[in-house]
Amino acid sequence: MGDMSVVGNGVHDQDSAFGEGGRRRSCWYEEEIEQDLRWSFALNSILHTGCSQYQDIVLLDTKPFGKALVIDGKLQSAEIDEFIYHESLVHPALLHHPNPKTVFIMGGGEGSTARETFRHKSIQSVVMCDIDEEVVDFCRSHLIVNKEAFCDPRLRLIISDARLELESRNDQFDVIIGDLADPIEGGPCYQLYTKSFYEGTVRPKLNPGGIFVTQAGPAGALSHTEVFSCIYNTLRQVFKYVVPYSAHVPSYADIWGWVMASDSPFTADAGELDRRIKLRMKGENMYLDGETFSASSTLSKVVRKSLAKETQVYTEGTAKFIHGHGTVQKAALQS
Amino acid sequence: MGDMSVVGNGVHDQDSAFGEGGRRRSCWYEEEIEQDLRWSFALNSILHTGCSQYQDIVLLDTKPFGKALVIDGKLQSAEIDEFIYHESLVHPALLHHPNPKTVFIMGGGEGSTARETFRHKSIQSVVMCDIDEEVVDFCRSHLIVNKEAFCDPRLRLIISDARLELESRNDQFDVIIGDLADPIEGGPCYQLYTKSFYEGTVRPKLNPGGIFVTQAGPAGALSHTEVFSCIYNTLRQVFKYVVPYSAHVPSYADIWGWVMASDSPFTADAGELDRRIKLRMKGENMYLDGETFSASSTLSKVVRKSLAKETQVYTEGTAKFIHGHGTVQKAALQS
Amino acid sequence: MGDMSVVGNGVHDQDSAFGEGGRRRSCWYEEEIEQDLRWSFALNSILHTGCSQYQDIVLLDTKPFGKALVIDGKLQSAEIDEFIYHESLVHPALLHHPNPKTVFIMGGGEGSTARETFRHKSIQSVVMCDIDEEVVDFCRSHLIVNKEAFCDPRLRLIISDARLELESRNDQFDVIIGDLADPIEGGPCYQLYTKSFYEGTVRPKLNPGGIFVTQAGPAGALSHTEVFSCIYNTLRQVFKYVVPYSAHVPSYADIWGWVMASDSPFTADAGELDRRIKLRMKGENMYLDGETFSASSTLSKVVRKSLAKETQVYTEGTAKFIHGHGTVQKAALQS
Amino acid sequence: MGDMSVVGNGVHDQDSAFGEGGRRRSCWYEEEIEQDLRWSFALNSILHTGCSQYQDIVLLDTKPFGKALVIDGKLQSAEIDEFIYHESLVHPALLHHPNPKTVFIMGGGEGSTARETFRHKSIQSVVMCDIDEEVVDFCRSHLIVNKEAFCDPRLRLIISDARLELESRNDQFDVIIGDLADPIEGGPCYQLYTKSFYEGTVRPKLNPGGIFVTQAGPAGALSHTEVFSCIYNTLRQVFKYVVPYSAHVPSYADIWGWVMASDSPFTADAGELDRRIKLRMKGENMYLDGETFSASSTLSKVVRKSLAKETQVYTEGTAKFIHGHGTVQKAALQS
Repeated sequence: MGDMSVVGNGVHDQDSAFGEGGRRRSCWYEEEIEQDLRWSFALNSILHTGCSQYQDIVLLDTKPFGKALVIDGKLQSAEIDEFIYHESLVHPALLHHPNPKTVFIMGGGEGSTARETFRHKSIQSVVMCDIDEEVVDFCRSHLIVNKEAFCDPRLRLIISDARLELESRNDQFDVIIGDLADPIEGGPCYQLYTKSFYEGTVRPKLNPGGIFVTQAGPAGALSHTEVFSCIYNTLRQVFKYVVPYSAHVPSYADIWGWVMASDSPFTADAGELDRRIKLRMKGENMYLDGETFSASSTLSKVVRKSLAKETQVYTEGTAKFIHGHGTVQKAALQS
Repeated sequence: MGDMSVVGNGVHDQDSAFGEGGRRRSCWYEEEIEQDLRWSFALNSILHTGCSQYQDIVLLDTKPFGKALVIDGKLQSAEIDEFIYHESLVHPALLHHPNPKTVFIMGGGEGSTARETFRHKSIQSVVMCDIDEEVVDFCRSHLIVNKEAFCDPRLRLIISDARLELESRNDQFDVIIGDLADPIEGGPCYQLYTKSFYEGTVRPKLNPGGIFVTQAGPAGALSHTEVFSCIYNTLRQVFKYVVPYSAHVPSYADIWGWVMASDSPFTADAGELDRRIKLRMKGENMYLDGETFSASSTLSKVVRKSLAKETQVYTEGTAKFIHGHGTVQKAALQS
Repeated sequence: MGDMSVVGNGVHDQDSAFGEGGRRRSCWYEEEIEQDLRWSFALNSILHTGCSQYQDIVLLDTKPFGKALVIDGKLQSAEIDEFIYHESLVHPALLHHPNPKTVFIMGGGEGSTARETFRHKSIQSVVMCDIDEEVVDFCRSHLIVNKEAFCDPRLRLIISDARLELESRNDQFDVIIGDLADPIEGGPCYQLYTKSFYEGTVRPKLNPGGIFVTQAGPAGALSHTEVFSCIYNTLRQVFKYVVPYSAHVPSYADIWGWVMASDSPFTADAGELDRRIKLRMKGENMYLDGETFSASSTLSKVVRKSLAKETQVYTEGTAKFIHGHGTVQKAALQS
Repeated sequence: MGDMSVVGNGVHDQDSAFGEGGRRRSCWYEEEIEQDLRWSFALNSILHTGCSQYQDIVLLDTKPFGKALVIDGKLQSAEIDEFIYHESLVHPALLHHPNPKTVFIMGGGEGSTARETFRHKSIQSVVMCDIDEEVVDFCRSHLIVNKEAFCDPRLRLIISDARLELESRNDQFDVIIGDLADPIEGGPCYQLYTKSFYEGTVRPKLNPGGIFVTQAGPAGALSHTEVFSCIYNTLRQVFKYVVPYSAHVPSYADIWGWVMASDSPFTADAGELDRRIKLRMKGENMYLDGETFSASSTLSKVVRKSLAKETQVYTEGTAKFIHGHGTVQKAALQS
């Protein structure tokens, strides 16, 4: 990145402790988290930009969070804390499974989900199915941390719609991971969160004892009603055992949620999870261990009560909105 | 608040004929969380402003978080989620204590800490000691939700430096609560976080079995090293039993931390906490119950390891800085 | 406005010259001048808000420009420099006219245009026709500086569409003033800038020797092609003598333009304008005098050449867009 | 600039399926024009960054103004409108001079001032004296538009303090151009705007009939009192003939000012200037011609009156401040 490190008078910060010139940042990334709420990071540089038929892609170098991948104006993951998101997405399901060998990743084009999956020694094959080839190519080229995962011989990368792909296959998987954009009506991923999809496509493609896990949107005390509670409730209609859990991802400015589901019970306690991590994984987790997962899956009173009362189910005909996506289509549909 | 509800074209959002004009927000509150990180809320109105010899005070009506109290450019608490901060600050200590009758609040001029304290039926007397009379008067006048607490006959309000006040008193307390600004070198509250203060002033003023609890700054995976780990480590030098815990406060854009300390062990488990809540408190908690506290006090691996390794102790001679505070004083001291 | 003057730590600005706490502003008004360009003022307070069936209305107290009227997210006029806009809109036409007695104002609901008009001693009657009663009521209530104008017995205020009103009247006017929103296709005012409107409605309603003047949007070296050049070219199709002129309005962050048109020549030079100001007007102009108008109506080479080459004419079927208005309608029309 | 053109979803603006997501800009350059006033441009990319012992330097690619050179958080010049600043700085003085052969540029490290100077066929030698070698090297490397000027054999580039350089030389010049940062007390350029400098250094270094011209800061109706009126008044103490003039530079969000001074009268009228442009210059001006200069040097009533009343003179002991500059030095001096 050469001479990129000094934008915004950064070099003077040390020696001009009080000068405004030494303090103000000039270049900013700004995201509308909601219509009324903005989150802004000072920038070192704009490393790469690209676009596909579906989305715009940018790789930024930000001051507070390091390199950050932004797709369609929404931060996807930041160098400094993506481990929280990806360890939380991948490891609970793989660790609860007695012996996971095959994994299907819906989305995940960034490569980090595959990277974490390959840390489980039992894994023999990972199918990663993302619809956006340009995003995949962009990440493969620019995200050094995932280079190895993209080259892993166990990876089978498919550019296609995850639903079509799953439906057309004859094989089953030990774990299916949903690493997709939030379910927005009219958005590209909405159909991958519906009851009929879970019932008719996901569940039949799981081996006996198989586990499904999906990212499930913001899960904070105020934000969990956007999609988290509804994804949870939808999965509850389909699977016998459903575990919602959450973790704070600093660069998202919010708690994030995931939901894990299976027709077999989740029996491993904190101690057992720690034993499995030691036995079955390569490298050390930074975020997740038994205790952490135990706290993550114990939701606060306000969220717990709200999830218990949720009645909405994602079907082809109903949907919930999240800020910044799908609004035009909605308007179009209604006009 | 009369006609204040329509700034920024809010009224037209649903059916707006004017498109983007009907969607963009015009008036914003902006806070520098760190030098490289900003957090902005759309505003409905600026309800009240004031200032004291110490600080500037503003009461805003924000779109995402309702009414918000801002002191010296830092959000103190927001209508929509202050319950998370104040239930977390007050109830764990009061519930773990077998029978709390007397409480001393350092700071707390907003009134919310006293309000939550009075919900415990055993409380006979609360001393609240805040240095800034104008802040107290401002909050007493404008924060309707705390009106009753300010009028409670059990409240003794003292305008003074909390250290001087505690040192000059002869009585002891069942619970002492620190509801102060973060420990910034040169800042007004730094001395209220040092080992010598905890050892020489706080501990001697606790009744046998007494509990001290303090807010302890940001406690996120990235931010807990600013002051949280150091407050924890400082208390660990003084008290036999120390419990750090944390919770996400949406309007702070981060996890927040508290530390509870005592020379008697904390023995109540989640079930016992729930029983005590039912038995000993008026009204229902929105955030805190036994399970929530159990998760709150189970820190994630990254924070847990970091706290275990912390070696710094706040003394008169050392300090840590947090962005946006104390700079004026520091400049003044050095010039 | 009582205690409103200290938001954003303003009170500390003097004595804490270097402290960040004393320097950062918390509350901001932000306007998208263009999609890629923003302009932000620190706020003292949000004084009044309102809305009508057509538009949202806000009266702000800003730090750099004093009180500011904002309609649909666009700054209309600011206390500190509205004199530049309104003196430029009103006085050149009234001063070039030999003896103006009757004036018709299209729009002008803010009241400032009427206020400047009444400063000409010869004026006997002013018809002000604005479509938005709520805006007029809002300004009449809150803009103290225009109180007197709204009460002037020579004012006839009509709430209606200016085109309909003009067409339905039998009387003619010495001067017609267009104080309207910019001509945006699908916007409420587009029809009041077309060739057919000027030819069929405005020109017939002018007395012999009558003058038409209209605000004409941004007129900077980069921005004059948005609507200014096209309004100029449209009027050039209809009137014998057409004078474009411009002035920098600081709160608009741009040069603003006006176009004056008549079938009689404009013969008064700078000296004559100064004589007429002295003779015919009450009070002293802050901005406009003979020399100023002479410079204002001498456009820079880049704008002059561009106007000379402009070929577009506003008709019912063609239009030009300006950022932030009319986009939804356009989308609606096209879908 | 390769793949740099699509940040902020720009490519999808026309046909974007995702509405607001396709419209919002993510990356912004933000400048505090004054403490209460901000100006922000959407960014395509951050092209180059650098720093010197004096200043930080950034070359941005902005959406509204093209490439933009920013030094210490202040926009210096933008690709799309720097011609207005540089034509206004250079040509009036060179055109009013009967036959300019030698020019001394104080500052001007960007190279654009030299570039415009070389367009005058009579020029035989240009001395450009800038104190900041890194800025000069940065601009020489990155500003393609000035490449030729930097290589012109008539250019003598000196890295030094302009005052020391001028004082130590024995030669005199036909035109001396001040292309320096504004006069801020404690700032690096303050001494190059004082009466004693003009009297003791500049004037003696002008050939008979020589002309001095300097950029003179913001010159808007509200901003001209910051430094423009004072530079004008200071020069009025020293030279017989002094001409203040101004032009709107869109990327500065304000009118900008220059002052031209000589002991010989300025006699060329608009027609004569146009004749000299044709005769004596290579290439065509975009901004400046006779008429434009005539309007530029006719200030509006409000500025004209204010300049006439200005009494302050820059001396070693007095100074005026402008926002965002010089604070570090000031702090340093006072501590």
